[in-house]
Amino acid sequence: MAAQREPKIGRRPGNQDTRGQIITAARHAFAAKGFAGASMRAIAAEAGVDAALIHHYFENKQQLFLATIALPLGLPRMLETVAAGDRSGLGERLVRTVLGVWDSELQPSLVAAVRTALTDPGLTRSVGEFLTLEVIGHALPHDDLSAEEADRRAGLVASQILGLVIGRYVLRLPVLANRQTDDLIAEVGPTVQRYVDGRT
Amino acid sequence: MAAQREPKIGRRPGNQDTRGQIITAARHAFAAKGFAGASMRAIAAEAGVDAALIHHYFENKQQLFLATIALPLGLPRMLETVAAGDRSGLGERLVRTVLGVWDSELQPSLVAAVRTALTDPGLTRSVGEFLTLEVIGHALPHDDLSAEEADRRAGLVASQILGLVIGRYVLRLPVLANRQTDDLIAEVGPTVQRYVDGRT
Repeated sequence: MAAQREPKIGRRPGNQDTRGQIITAARHAFAAKGFAGASMRAIAAEAGVDAALIHHYFENKQQLFLATIALPLGLPRMLETVAAGDRSGLGERLVRTVLGVWDSELQPSLVAAVRTALTDPGLTRSVGEFLTLEVIGHALPHDDLSAEEADRRAGLVASQILGLVIGRYVLRLPVLANRQTDDLIAEVGPTVQRYVDGRT
Repeated sequence: MAAQREPKIGRRPGNQDTRGQIITAARHAFAAKGFAGASMRAIAAEAGVDAALIHHYFENKQQLFLATIALPLGLPRMLETVAAGDRSGLGERLVRTVLGVWDSELQPSLVAAVRTALTDPGLTRSVGEFLTLEVIGHALPHDDLSAEEADRRAGLVASQILGLVIGRYVLRLPVLANRQTDDLIAEVGPTVQRYVDGRT
């Protein structure tokens, strides 16, 4: 593991260059080692800053990763809200939340994030690990399911949500891009609900 | 669909440089004008060859586009077979066919094709148009549906298939990549069938 450098004199907390340097270093680290393998300490070393300074900008590795691919930092909390409501409405809430984020002013940076993530094989792995560990893990209830069954349901949910988002916002297929959000929620929500419930 | 034409006398069928030149020109044209907007004539002009020579290598624009993004030239025919069988098994057949193609030795070039397609905004548009006009159009029965209803169903089918493929083979989410093909067919097939039938 690389030696930890001393923070350089004169850096200020609000310094956009420092934040940018950390994000650049994080992008390299996630690309090289995946989301699970990249450590905050190694990212600090590559950015040439003290590890404590990273925590000044980013609460944890999840937040740093979200910033790296320009995703909203509040996403994990939103997904917890999805999971917290009644179980029978989870599919619809999840689709509504995801489409709401993508229909917002974040859309251009989300599209850019998907392009970046899918272009770089190393970053692709990080995105895959992040989606599996953090996003799906936060959004779905686990109850007393076996890990295998929880994974099975999570994979099916991911397959539907990913395709909806990539088809509508990244590929911009007219048959998805031209649809009303509420109609898509009504049509795709039941599929996600079935997957969440373990039905086919 | 007509069989690929026989090579003409005197031309060297195996000339990879000419074929490669045409594909490079086609990639530029599709990126600049989309799948619908790029003409075979303009592609020939950019490649510096006679338009007839393109038809020596590629039966039509669809085949040229498939070659451009390294997709199997037989894909449209396979999808016609999907559509030709009994209606009640269409969802499962479509998922089985798509996963079969992706589980084949074509997988690395398909992954590369998706990365390429999603990276270049111009090519992304071509892929979107191609998927909508050619792939979905070939795979789904139209019956006496209104164009709007056919599009609605096609969009939902595309959302599920795209996400399954990108999650399993491109992002390689463990929750999808580690699953058995037959299990995924049994689980995702009914969703696709519901969408094909216009149910939610």
